[in-house]
Amino acid sequence: MRSITAFSNPLVKATRLLRDKKHRRDAGRFLAEGLRILTEAREAGRLPETLFFVPSATDRPLVNALVTATEAAGGEAIETNADILSKLSGKDNPGSVIGVYEEFLTPLASIDRAAAQLWLVAERLRDPGNLGTILRTADAVGAGGLILLDDCVDPFSVEAVRASMGALFTVPVARATWEEFRMWLRSGPGQLVGLSLDTDADYRAADYASPTFLLTGNEAQGMPDHMAAECDLLVKIPMLGKADSLNAAVATAVMAYEVLARHRG
Amino acid sequence: MRSITAFSNPLVKATRLLRDKKHRRDAGRFLAEGLRILTEAREAGRLPETLFFVPSATDRPLVNALVTATEAAGGEAIETNADILSKLSGKDNPGSVIGVYEEFLTPLASIDRAAAQLWLVAERLRDPGNLGTILRTADAVGAGGLILLDDCVDPFSVEAVRASMGALFTVPVARATWEEFRMWLRSGPGQLVGLSLDTDADYRAADYASPTFLLTGNEAQGMPDHMAAECDLLVKIPMLGKADSLNAAVATAVMAYEVLARHRG
Repeated sequence: MRSITAFSNPLVKATRLLRDKKHRRDAGRFLAEGLRILTEAREAGRLPETLFFVPSATDRPLVNALVTATEAAGGEAIETNADILSKLSGKDNPGSVIGVYEEFLTPLASIDRAAAQLWLVAERLRDPGNLGTILRTADAVGAGGLILLDDCVDPFSVEAVRASMGALFTVPVARATWEEFRMWLRSGPGQLVGLSLDTDADYRAADYASPTFLLTGNEAQGMPDHMAAECDLLVKIPMLGKADSLNAAVATAVMAYEVLARHRG
Repeated sequence: MRSITAFSNPLVKATRLLRDKKHRRDAGRFLAEGLRILTEAREAGRLPETLFFVPSATDRPLVNALVTATEAAGGEAIETNADILSKLSGKDNPGSVIGVYEEFLTPLASIDRAAAQLWLVAERLRDPGNLGTILRTADAVGAGGLILLDDCVDPFSVEAVRASMGALFTVPVARATWEEFRMWLRSGPGQLVGLSLDTDADYRAADYASPTFLLTGNEAQGMPDHMAAECDLLVKIPMLGKADSLNAAVATAVMAYEVLARHRG
């Protein structure tokens, strides 16, 4: 275990760069922060290559467990101070730990669709907070995973990891083009369900088949026509007010919980 | 109509300060941005005192409608450029319009609870994005309004207004202490419903009475025990994964849509 307290330390500088997408891609590494999320990761068997922690927090059992597990797995635990944690995190109050993790995705081809009754699919999601929140919901509804289509925001961004509250480490995430996904989907059973404004089918009255693949479209534009045309079922959520759409993570959750309840009978 | 293209202009500086809570409170004014949100506001009868717009966008009918309506109501429409709009908004791509509005809240005492079957209530909400998203959901489910309890984040923050997608202008918002709310609630009919981990009552199987007041607790801690004890009904949303909670705006929406569906039969 070593200690770093200088802003100018090269490792601090290199770690801070992982807040930037280009550097994450080049390094294949990302940042996660906060005791709750890092503990969730540890319990899922994911340990950081580098763990920064605040020494005054070492008496807390969960921090100790992270330090011990990180070092046992060949990673490095580094004592530092709250100022450097803030610099790494970009937050005033970053908590007591930040970890550097290797990026991981699940190849679409290795997904076993029979493993779950519900899968979430999102296309061209732009907001990292929405992506993280959808991951958190995926965990809660017991979804098999989240499949990101086309040009989605990076699931390893600091904001997405934070909003996922650790679900990034527990919910399989795959990335594919629409065409790759469509071919894979049609190679086996699965009902593709999309939200649409152009249908009379209320989401509470529709019939869902297992496994259900729930498709969420881009925040501003929804899904393009050719994706809607491919859906086996288009449903609408009632909108009783002035606006014509819900937040994408909210719409996904309302749909996901409906499908879950229906599958559970 | 006048034109401002200098960053150093005092009105630009004063307007930019409204991104800060203290200055909003002192001025009683807040910022909203983007054609969609300002148009939603206009249609709800809310016009800005000052409208900043980009001249290249004046040929767009919705911008023109805003300029005309603002001036007709005695407000000022100011031509500016994209750089100044960015500076006012803090975003790289702020759209074509930003408005300065007078703050408005609905006094709790003037709420007519019979006007809607569902009301949303949130206590100590910390995240402005969650607050705005809950407002957007409140609009969608036809809720009578949102009641903010105790120390909630400012509904007039730039992030909350943005996440509300205009619902801030269409959904009544009240602010009260827990004790003020409790006294008001018990002065008439109303079922107070809270989410809890400490109940076996599934939210899909519970009985909801109208008007339903749906209480969302603080993001990190949930609601305190004395609020849970005051609830007429505590329900749980199933959590099938590793985590024990949903995002606060997601949980509110899942509950709100369940209550809506049950009220509609």
